[in-house]
Amino acid sequence: MVARGEEQAMRAAVAASEQVRGTTSPNPPVGCVILGTGGEVVGVGSTRPPGGPHAEVVALRAAGERARGGTAVVTLEPCSHTGRTPPCTDALIAAGVARVVHAASDPNPLASGGAERLRAAGVEVVSGLLADEVAAGPLRAWLHFARTGRPHVTWKYAATLDGRSAAADGTSKWISSAESRADVHRLRARADAIIAGTGTVRADDPHLTARAADGTLLERQPLRVVIGDSEIPASAKVLDDAAETVQLPGGDPRAALAALAERGIVDVLLEGGPRLAGAFVQAGCVDRVLAYVAPALLGAGPAALGEAGVGSISQAWRLQIEETTMSGPDVRISAVPQES
Amino acid sequence: MVARGEEQAMRAAVAASEQVRGTTSPNPPVGCVILGTGGEVVGVGSTRPPGGPHAEVVALRAAGERARGGTAVVTLEPCSHTGRTPPCTDALIAAGVARVVHAASDPNPLASGGAERLRAAGVEVVSGLLADEVAAGPLRAWLHFARTGRPHVTWKYAATLDGRSAAADGTSKWISSAESRADVHRLRARADAIIAGTGTVRADDPHLTARAADGTLLERQPLRVVIGDSEIPASAKVLDDAAETVQLPGGDPRAALAALAERGIVDVLLEGGPRLAGAFVQAGCVDRVLAYVAPALLGAGPAALGEAGVGSISQAWRLQIEETTMSGPDVRISAVPQES
Repeated sequence: MVARGEEQAMRAAVAASEQVRGTTSPNPPVGCVILGTGGEVVGVGSTRPPGGPHAEVVALRAAGERARGGTAVVTLEPCSHTGRTPPCTDALIAAGVARVVHAASDPNPLASGGAERLRAAGVEVVSGLLADEVAAGPLRAWLHFARTGRPHVTWKYAATLDGRSAAADGTSKWISSAESRADVHRLRARADAIIAGTGTVRADDPHLTARAADGTLLERQPLRVVIGDSEIPASAKVLDDAAETVQLPGGDPRAALAALAERGIVDVLLEGGPRLAGAFVQAGCVDRVLAYVAPALLGAGPAALGEAGVGSISQAWRLQIEETTMSGPDVRISAVPQES
Repeated sequence: MVARGEEQAMRAAVAASEQVRGTTSPNPPVGCVILGTGGEVVGVGSTRPPGGPHAEVVALRAAGERARGGTAVVTLEPCSHTGRTPPCTDALIAAGVARVVHAASDPNPLASGGAERLRAAGVEVVSGLLADEVAAGPLRAWLHFARTGRPHVTWKYAATLDGRSAAADGTSKWISSAESRADVHRLRARADAIIAGTGTVRADDPHLTARAADGTLLERQPLRVVIGDSEIPASAKVLDDAAETVQLPGGDPRAALAALAERGIVDVLLEGGPRLAGAFVQAGCVDRVLAYVAPALLGAGPAALGEAGVGSISQAWRLQIEETTMSGPDVRISAVPQES
């Protein structure tokens, strides 16, 4: 049984976790709300950058003695292993928390067992509250990483209704609306890394930073990753000091993602171009497609996706639509690979 | 002031008009509900095929004497001119109707003035109830035709999320879902004509008929129109006896539409291929784009729209999204040209 106040608390925990997305990898961006014995909020916390305390500990510190006999509402099953910080389960037990309500369970064999350990210490544990919402939202990339060992890749692109990502002469500023471009900058600020191919870097000279509408850099900048063997001109914008940039040679998506995983990269935004996107799709390395479809027709010009190993309709990469929303005048379509 | 019962009656009139879409051209598919003096429904009618009575007359006949002192609720301003049938205004006046509530006003200078004529006869007239809904729905094509003299053209296509309407080897069965294909057959049954190019007819041999899921022909079949100069093989499916077929030589969309207008065609579904669609877009002859976007990726293969006279992004044909709905697993996007 979940109390009504606990669902509200979980929504507050989700909101707290959203605030730290992009700052916690390789740790998960978790949110935690501590409710006192009367059901009142006595502490809120979210995961601090690697090496810092986890969400539960931050929230417990805020709550102090008021946590005793209370409830911890947390977006992920509390960890029971000692990493760079001691296990959260022990902190919860030591604080005298009587009940823990969590959303997602921890798929990581090293960290899981948290619920079990809490129960063994006499703490009541309820799991699964808003689990789907959390798994599709703030913890999506991290859960994917925990299950597969591979960073989660969102392939993002903008195209016209007739599927063109640029006009016949190569111009593409702007296909999508100001609202959609702002949305992409928000996505970038929450990602660990942005990937583009050397072809795109040489042709379009993108900055690959997260910026505000007036062009100023946002506080958080993802790692800029350029994949490919061609040399990047020293004057390229991706080589400026706005953010860190790495070039990964070769064009193998799996190798590139493995290299990024070693750097603690969990959440990746793949931005192009068509050839690199095709390679990622063909390698089965696209976990989410995010299309900004602009209400415009061009009738000529390149498509967003290049060769992806499909010769015939029966070999099409089938997805399922997850969400369709308006982004200003554009349609924003989120799709994920069809479960096989 | 519109009474609550009158809005309900207008929805019933809209529903009645939907039943006869595709059977009334060049007349508008109108629906009419007669309310008695107590607000009860005493008659419902919709436009009969050309030469037959209009909706008001059908509804008045059903109501008989109960129409006296009552209200006529009708989707279009009653006509005041004598065409193949006498003016509906006179029938309403003769029946002793005290009040007329209509949705759209008649843009046709020959037929308009209906409201004025009714008022002159002492009938109370209210206009504009659900006018936007009716103008975007059952009367859309006819209102366009009345304003411009050109049939209304809906360009319909199916494509993958990455904008391909066929795979690299030309296969396209099926890109869109069974639900979307059924939706298209319903659209066909309500259209006056379906247009395809000779290239598509020669390459794909489409039937261009409205069919049920089991392949049987629906009761209503639109005119099949093949545009272009190439010869259609005598064995082509479009030449069978399932429906009438005409071939219009030359490739000029405006000329083709003028020829169709002369045949009383008001509502047209343009189905392809890319070259013909490009010509229609370039000629400004696409009044609505209806895209069935399938959640699939191909990475190669033709786009739905060919050359449309756009060289650079600044020349893009800009639209606005009217509606986005799910059609089974597909996203169905309806867009109209941006008002300039």
